[in-house]
Amino acid sequence: MKDAFNFLRKIKSVAFATVENGKPCVRIADVMLVEDDKLYFLTARGKPYYKQLKENPHLAIVGMDENYVTVRVTGDIEFVDRSYVDKIFEANPMMNDLYPGEKREILDAFCMIRGVGEIFDLSVVPIERQRFDFGGSVVNPSGYSINEKCVACGICKSACPMNAISEDSIYKIDSTKCLECGRCFEACPNNAIIPPLGL
Amino acid sequence: MKDAFNFLRKIKSVAFATVENGKPCVRIADVMLVEDDKLYFLTARGKPYYKQLKENPHLAIVGMDENYVTVRVTGDIEFVDRSYVDKIFEANPMMNDLYPGEKREILDAFCMIRGVGEIFDLSVVPIERQRFDFGGSVVNPSGYSINEKCVACGICKSACPMNAISEDSIYKIDSTKCLECGRCFEACPNNAIIPPLGL
Repeated sequence: MKDAFNFLRKIKSVAFATVENGKPCVRIADVMLVEDDKLYFLTARGKPYYKQLKENPHLAIVGMDENYVTVRVTGDIEFVDRSYVDKIFEANPMMNDLYPGEKREILDAFCMIRGVGEIFDLSVVPIERQRFDFGGSVVNPSGYSINEKCVACGICKSACPMNAISEDSIYKIDSTKCLECGRCFEACPNNAIIPPLGL
Repeated sequence: MKDAFNFLRKIKSVAFATVENGKPCVRIADVMLVEDDKLYFLTARGKPYYKQLKENPHLAIVGMDENYVTVRVTGDIEFVDRSYVDKIFEANPMMNDLYPGEKREILDAFCMIRGVGEIFDLSVVPIERQRFDFGGSVVNPSGYSINEKCVACGICKSACPMNAISEDSIYKIDSTKCLECGRCFEACPNNAIIPPLGL
């Protein structure tokens, strides 16, 4: 989890998604600080983004580095006291170009206090993915899975584009390699395949 | 608008935000095709992302290039016929690595049919932004504005971190330079400043 947060801090400019009137909104912003295994951000009180977070304090963020490794985190946010604005300016001196001197007063800092996430490596075939949670949230396992209705016919294995399915008394899906495309689910003649929940 | 779409196609891997149970979800994916001023994408029927789009066919996307130019687009999507899956594979041959041969059958293509967007250049101070709409949507103007209650006291001008406010009989805000931080709004003693609507 800490690695995932530092990854986001390193690539820094990532996408931040919120909800307004039931519709998605997204913009590029920076992960400003990682401290005590928490992610800190800034926004200005006049922005639609700020109002969205006040009304619906849930945030999803994603970033990809130059090696096609993706980190996604989604969780609950809380606004934090103003000392974090100063801390963030110390850690991100270029903020002074946008908000010189006292102009930083219009900014508020907030923090993702709990949530779930995933590291996803698209540079390899099969892909690799790993989920994590923090702050008391519990993450859903990734990937499709196979239940006891399986008759080991092998149809799912040949349907999988990732070779993520292996033979056994009943077949098994390697959740770290599953793209969640659902081709095994559509192919299985025995309803033995269970879809994953979202992140 | 066409420039904005081609920008997204060129940087290709951008963030796609959806809504599930009122909460934001976001992932990195590719803009697969720009044709007739429409944006085309793919997803697999088994993914949570697909279910989110079926239940709530609104999508927000954002990408930033190496020069810190950002394009955001948000709008309504529709699933399109399967010929687009083949068209997309022709335009994006690396898709064959993930979904070789007939395995592409699990994919469905969709299109953003109408929406609004913004080009945002963060590499310059003051920033520059420009909005657009397509397919019949009407975009809200960006930026704060000043109404006739203005007494030309100049407080807003000195509050603005972007020097986006100029003097006249009543003061004016250059909406292409406005960060929407709201500092002028908080500073104005006459309630003469009007907040923008979201994108």
